[in-house]
Amino acid sequence: MVSQKNLYCPVARSANVIGDRWTLLILRDLFQNGRCRFQSLLESLDGIAPNTLSARLKSLEANGIIERDFYEMHPPRAEYLLTEKGRALGPIIRALYKWGDQYGT
Amino acid sequence: MVSQKNLYCPVARSANVIGDRWTLLILRDLFQNGRCRFQSLLESLDGIAPNTLSARLKSLEANGIIERDFYEMHPPRAEYLLTEKGRALGPIIRALYKWGDQYGT
Repeated sequence: MVSQKNLYCPVARSANVIGDRWTLLILRDLFQNGRCRFQSLLESLDGIAPNTLSARLKSLEANGIIERDFYEMHPPRAEYLLTEKGRALGPIIRALYKWGDQYGT
Repeated sequence: MVSQKNLYCPVARSANVIGDRWTLLILRDLFQNGRCRFQSLLESLDGIAPNTLSARLKSLEANGIIERDFYEMHPPRAEYLLTEKGRALGPIIRALYKWGDQYGT
């Protein structure tokens, strides 16, 4: 967690919410697929622990970046999708793609 | 650390190198100031532990994103600056700024 002082800076505010490698991969999957179930994220993000994925999704939801759409109620089953605020992260993910494609090792 | 499978994706390769909130703030400072000393980064990144800052800088240097310029040799004192590969991260930092300015809470 970044201190209050740092949060006056817009870069710090963004970094505080999405500055985590698993979070960036969750966002990538949501941009690619539109909607994702927990299980499909777990399989796509090879190596992530279920409780880590759960914590990252909760944090993204608490920050208004993703929302859950329940497609079944008994038992409750949800898909995750980006909110408008989440879709506004598109330029960041595209910039990460471009740099990774050109320079990533 | 992200698994090998994930590293076929350019977003994952970028996330693996810079997907960390302190790393993003170090990059922000280098883009803003051009060159930074360890002590000035330590003060700017309010709350970072010296060994964490040191580890992040070593990782950025190992990944060819920053380099050290020694302005004094006895004792050795260096400033950190972005390489060409590091300067190519500009669009990512600008996209983080823009989103944080509009949506960051």
